[in-house]
Amino acid sequence: MAQPEALTRNEDGIAAALGVLKQQFGERFSTGASICEQHAHTTTWIPNQPPDGVVFAHSAQEVADVVKVCAAHKVPVIPFGTGTSLEGHTNAPAGGISIDVSHMDKVVEVNASDLDCRVQPGVTRMALNTHLRDQGLFFPIDPGADASIGGMAATRASGTNAVRYGTMKDNVISVEVVTANGEIIRTASRARKSSAGYDLTRLMVGSEGTLGIITEVTLRLQGIPEAISAASCSFPTIEAACETVMAVIQYGLPVARIELLDALVVKAVNGYSKLTLPETPLLLLEFHGSDAGVVEQAETFGALAEEFGGTGYAATTTAEERTKLWQARHDAYWAMLALRPGCKAVATDVCVPISKLAEAVGAAAAKALEMDLIAPIVGHAGDGNFHASVLVDMQDVAEVARAEAFVSWLNDMAIALGGTCTGEHGIGQGKRPYLRRELGGAVDMMMAVKQALDPDGILNPGKIFI
Amino acid sequence: MAQPEALTRNEDGIAAALGVLKQQFGERFSTGASICEQHAHTTTWIPNQPPDGVVFAHSAQEVADVVKVCAAHKVPVIPFGTGTSLEGHTNAPAGGISIDVSHMDKVVEVNASDLDCRVQPGVTRMALNTHLRDQGLFFPIDPGADASIGGMAATRASGTNAVRYGTMKDNVISVEVVTANGEIIRTASRARKSSAGYDLTRLMVGSEGTLGIITEVTLRLQGIPEAISAASCSFPTIEAACETVMAVIQYGLPVARIELLDALVVKAVNGYSKLTLPETPLLLLEFHGSDAGVVEQAETFGALAEEFGGTGYAATTTAEERTKLWQARHDAYWAMLALRPGCKAVATDVCVPISKLAEAVGAAAAKALEMDLIAPIVGHAGDGNFHASVLVDMQDVAEVARAEAFVSWLNDMAIALGGTCTGEHGIGQGKRPYLRRELGGAVDMMMAVKQALDPDGILNPGKIFI
Repeated sequence: MAQPEALTRNEDGIAAALGVLKQQFGERFSTGASICEQHAHTTTWIPNQPPDGVVFAHSAQEVADVVKVCAAHKVPVIPFGTGTSLEGHTNAPAGGISIDVSHMDKVVEVNASDLDCRVQPGVTRMALNTHLRDQGLFFPIDPGADASIGGMAATRASGTNAVRYGTMKDNVISVEVVTANGEIIRTASRARKSSAGYDLTRLMVGSEGTLGIITEVTLRLQGIPEAISAASCSFPTIEAACETVMAVIQYGLPVARIELLDALVVKAVNGYSKLTLPETPLLLLEFHGSDAGVVEQAETFGALAEEFGGTGYAATTTAEERTKLWQARHDAYWAMLALRPGCKAVATDVCVPISKLAEAVGAAAAKALEMDLIAPIVGHAGDGNFHASVLVDMQDVAEVARAEAFVSWLNDMAIALGGTCTGEHGIGQGKRPYLRRELGGAVDMMMAVKQALDPDGILNPGKIFI
Repeated sequence: MAQPEALTRNEDGIAAALGVLKQQFGERFSTGASICEQHAHTTTWIPNQPPDGVVFAHSAQEVADVVKVCAAHKVPVIPFGTGTSLEGHTNAPAGGISIDVSHMDKVVEVNASDLDCRVQPGVTRMALNTHLRDQGLFFPIDPGADASIGGMAATRASGTNAVRYGTMKDNVISVEVVTANGEIIRTASRARKSSAGYDLTRLMVGSEGTLGIITEVTLRLQGIPEAISAASCSFPTIEAACETVMAVIQYGLPVARIELLDALVVKAVNGYSKLTLPETPLLLLEFHGSDAGVVEQAETFGALAEEFGGTGYAATTTAEERTKLWQARHDAYWAMLALRPGCKAVATDVCVPISKLAEAVGAAAAKALEMDLIAPIVGHAGDGNFHASVLVDMQDVAEVARAEAFVSWLNDMAIALGGTCTGEHGIGQGKRPYLRRELGGAVDMMMAVKQALDPDGILNPGKIFI
């Protein structure tokens, strides 16, 4: 994994922009070192590349104002929500201005009868779900972190519920965007479907702040299901667990979540969350539906799992037991870190066709062992998406090099199996070398779109493309 | 509705391209008047604007070869599948070359275990479903016509099943595309989800041949449900039927189809299909699921419908009765035409937020009456999408003018209600005046993308943009 280079800084432009923004935003503009560092990348091993200043914006118009200043001086702008992205998305390799939208945290409108809502980009998914609960609605996308909706849209996030409810691509109806020249546009109407021109909504979702800055998101919502049931099932091997997942998908069972934890992760969560799960590969499941429907789904799953040697299968519909079970999954990241205190977890994020899941997960586990790396695996298995989190002692240069080699090998393997180097984290800085290996000449088309919409390259430079 | 203008023709370039293509393609290249007319627009009131020649391509490489010739001479290329589009998509207002892909009709690969397949663009949806049936799979998108998969992708088609299975946007995993300079690219891997760069797949889906020519499509498939049940229910008023649909969506009932027919359409299909349905507004439904699941869904629907005065509700799981019931829906277009023999049906295609459906449909019916027009209404009601098909005597100049005024009023009403001027037909030539009314400055962003990917404007000119 190539470390991100520092790009050429436009010092004169930056100095001029800082002066104007200070005047325009007063106390809501900061050039303090700690504020700037907090707005660059902090959560992975990618080094921190802070911006020169941070604006705390309160409206789309203010975002547009900042962009206009930066456009006039050809200065980079980097949107910032919660900073929970994992591939260096919020770094400022050429300096510039971070636009923090976390204060834009209003749920503007909930149309319960249309199952949609409009939110400002700084609303987090948990805040949104708290807001929606008493209307019997929820927003299903759950990437783990309490990310902002704007950031989730920008990285095309997904997570544990995607197998049933899709990703951000499927759940964003339209976005309001500030363009590179400071115009404010809306990409689509509120209709559930449309064939009106190019799908700018989907073009913006996953564009990582490089084509525009998202200032409002219209989202599809779901009714809270009548019944929710959770279950876990242990398997003798990782392959048996994966084959069960493949059977579930092929059967068409509408599981809401189907998560894979390898034996090492189960051991970690047992320790961290005080559980007594058998320390073999585990599937965690959630079923959504009617009272009768979730029972039927759970029974069908049980029958499928049995064919592949699943044991200890138990389903529960009580909220308390369900929460306890899923806590293990939510704690997995911290539990894994606790396996090697002081180490960093290097996130990986490949996604392969479901028929290749057992092969890919098995190969990843074997490769980590062969390379003398500790890389516990969790997966949104129903999508063929899994994360081998390499626990790395950053002081051990040789180990860091092996981890880099593993990440590179993993991405290439996924691509060779017809998959992708990123199922949900995005390209950012870290995955840039792999984009062309995966998509070849299509990257030239992406670059042409980027050039057309941001000719001066001020929108989040140094991301997606090398 | 403005009639499409003839655009400036590049006579020298066209003459040169015709010469080269004749040499390259021999008998698979035609400049015959009848062949050319068949490859321009035939199914609506938009006048036929034939291309100068038609190439019957057999491979992506051949499509690329044609595009390279046309690019060298700056000559328009217009992709053609089955010609079932409704807004002038296949017209050649500046002349040029139609690339007929109907011979590219191979199902390249079916990955049953991944629920996906790769098809050439000329495969029709019915041919695909015939191919898939013995593997227990189906492709759910059903726009009515037996359209080609390439054309359905290009217009972002949907139809009766979209309420459950989404539109082409949701069911295309990736496309292979020939770009404006004759390169062949693939937009995405075969993974079920990805965050790898811009979503070029969704950019191509719905781009109506103006950004590239689709030469292969990778599709999501569905397992044929264990059980399918069909039902019909009559309502005292169109508002009552729409309110039932709204309740169904808000309840989260996973109906596979929920189609609205107004009283006039029911009368038409009774006559055409020899049925005896009560001549009041009707909902036709289909439920997909397990044996127990479809019974539960049908019961839930019945309870909801009763609240809004639904009568004559009957569900059936036998294939024969189901086919008979849905035949009425499939015949609706021909049945409506039979209401006024010799007239053309002017298709409309608005889509509004579901909470506005009753209001929009009621207003459309009242407006048609007020304007002395016959405009039976059918709707993919679960999406808020409906079609008022104006039956027009094309010899009656005043009536044609009234129909045009109605279409314009309808589009503006849908936009004012937060909806779109096209739910599934696309912009083509006919809807161009409404795109900017709906999306404002976003159209400039679309035009910037178009300019970047097709600087000489050779890909299907005169469509989408004015």
